[in-house]
Amino acid sequence: MVSLSDVARSAHVSKMTVSRVINHPEQVSLEIRTEVQRVINQLGYVQNRAGRALANHRHYNIAFILLDNVDEIEPYYAHLLIHLTDVLQSYGYTLEMRHERNFDVTNVDGFLVSGVRHSDYDALRNLSVPVVIYGSEPGITAVDIDNTIGTQLATELLLKQSYQHILFLGMDVDEAFELNREAGYRQAMQTAEKPIQIYKLANDEHVSREFLIGQSLMPQTGIVAATDRLALGALRACIHQGLSVPRDVGIVGFDGIYVHQLAEQSLTTVKQPLKDIAQQMVQLLLDELSGKTVQSVYIVPELLIGETTN
Amino acid sequence: MVSLSDVARSAHVSKMTVSRVINHPEQVSLEIRTEVQRVINQLGYVQNRAGRALANHRHYNIAFILLDNVDEIEPYYAHLLIHLTDVLQSYGYTLEMRHERNFDVTNVDGFLVSGVRHSDYDALRNLSVPVVIYGSEPGITAVDIDNTIGTQLATELLLKQSYQHILFLGMDVDEAFELNREAGYRQAMQTAEKPIQIYKLANDEHVSREFLIGQSLMPQTGIVAATDRLALGALRACIHQGLSVPRDVGIVGFDGIYVHQLAEQSLTTVKQPLKDIAQQMVQLLLDELSGKTVQSVYIVPELLIGETTN
Repeated sequence: MVSLSDVARSAHVSKMTVSRVINHPEQVSLEIRTEVQRVINQLGYVQNRAGRALANHRHYNIAFILLDNVDEIEPYYAHLLIHLTDVLQSYGYTLEMRHERNFDVTNVDGFLVSGVRHSDYDALRNLSVPVVIYGSEPGITAVDIDNTIGTQLATELLLKQSYQHILFLGMDVDEAFELNREAGYRQAMQTAEKPIQIYKLANDEHVSREFLIGQSLMPQTGIVAATDRLALGALRACIHQGLSVPRDVGIVGFDGIYVHQLAEQSLTTVKQPLKDIAQQMVQLLLDELSGKTVQSVYIVPELLIGETTN
Repeated sequence: MVSLSDVARSAHVSKMTVSRVINHPEQVSLEIRTEVQRVINQLGYVQNRAGRALANHRHYNIAFILLDNVDEIEPYYAHLLIHLTDVLQSYGYTLEMRHERNFDVTNVDGFLVSGVRHSDYDALRNLSVPVVIYGSEPGITAVDIDNTIGTQLATELLLKQSYQHILFLGMDVDEAFELNREAGYRQAMQTAEKPIQIYKLANDEHVSREFLIGQSLMPQTGIVAATDRLALGALRACIHQGLSVPRDVGIVGFDGIYVHQLAEQSLTTVKQPLKDIAQQMVQLLLDELSGKTVQSVYIVPELLIGETTN
């Protein structure tokens, strides 16, 4: 069977161009359009599934791909997904849910992707339809929060509240979001000329609790955690050691979705504005679909003040 | 514009029958098929969106509708959704995500629905395509766990472990799942000839904590909670009052998704087998689509033993 790639090769254009000729011919020059259409007819390329065969210019269907395993699913995703569904619906688009690495472009106009890791970027760069990721990666249209500013705000809050020893509880993954959260802490500490103390752990409240109990926390410690789960473990280590939060120890988490409210004391945290993120992801994707030049968007997060800081 | 309802009325058949003639003619008798097709041609009914116009017999697309508000979203949904996506994909179907009351049947073969409340049932009964709900309702194909057996198992466990006063912490909603969980506790207590003590609260760990602190829990109390969030509040009330769990108080929650692991001590809980539920929901829907007579399925749940019982 003749594929989109075959058409692209014979017509000496990219798969994206072939896809544009099929779905958005108005965005392609007459010359290229004519040539690609000639190759399509010559090779007998059959546009698969119902929508395409009708020569509609859009499927009005966007796939959301979740790249995490079911065991790693955070409450997070349900919220992002519902916001994306609502935003797409407001534009007359449907959201097709995908799990794991299903990059089949049949019947979709584009992809929204979350949970992307290093190993996925090549596949994403080679797709024939537009992609917007939730995250950060050069060369891929992205929406993200500014993770660095997030932890900078968190660190500055603890500095302002006069905690003496401020440490960073990071995740032991080598991904941009984590390194940026670490950098925000580092920058704020350097500006304040305070010593830097960084620990990296699995993202699990039990792990961070045990680890900090082993460290015997001192009064007047401030903890900047890379996630609310790590912050939750820190809070429990304090309770275990008889340290009062926020009087003896101040804690700021990161995410602000579900977990921060479930803690014994509501966590002060850097809040991911998922509704804004969803809005921006859809906007960028639709702009790209209509041929506009788009730039990645970084949203400045805000602190959500809970009961773990003064 | 001529609608599916117009065709149904003129042909003196149900909308479901018209839908079947269009999507699964093999399931409809020759006589009815011929008549409905005659009316379709006569009225000039245009099957909307790409798929139908192609006269494909299936869209191979199922809509999942989440009927809860974004503020009420439990971690739960992300897990159910991912399992449904995986199962549908294994059958060659896509999952279209819907939020709130979007029962538009364009381009979908059927609906899977979660978070259904009383007020939704009429709308669900009047759809022209098959529906399977996660829940229980006479006259609608459903997959559910047997909630009554769930709390019966929970209550029997606490009875066996010799807790003296066993109370039920329910949700203050008038929905079948809650009433069935209450009934399971009631039946186990009646069989054991023990006094029944039922409280109904908002499903919030802070609410149940405050409530139980106000009640001054006695040692040798067993608590059957209708959700893990209520159980989490019960655990915190015990910690606050200096009662040791499970030595002084035994607690069993309900759900076993995310929250039970995030608790200070992992909760013993009635586990919702979401993977099985997803498998059964899809199976029933596809059976119904291929014209089989289907019956609602009730899955017997199991206890997940944590650190809040002996």
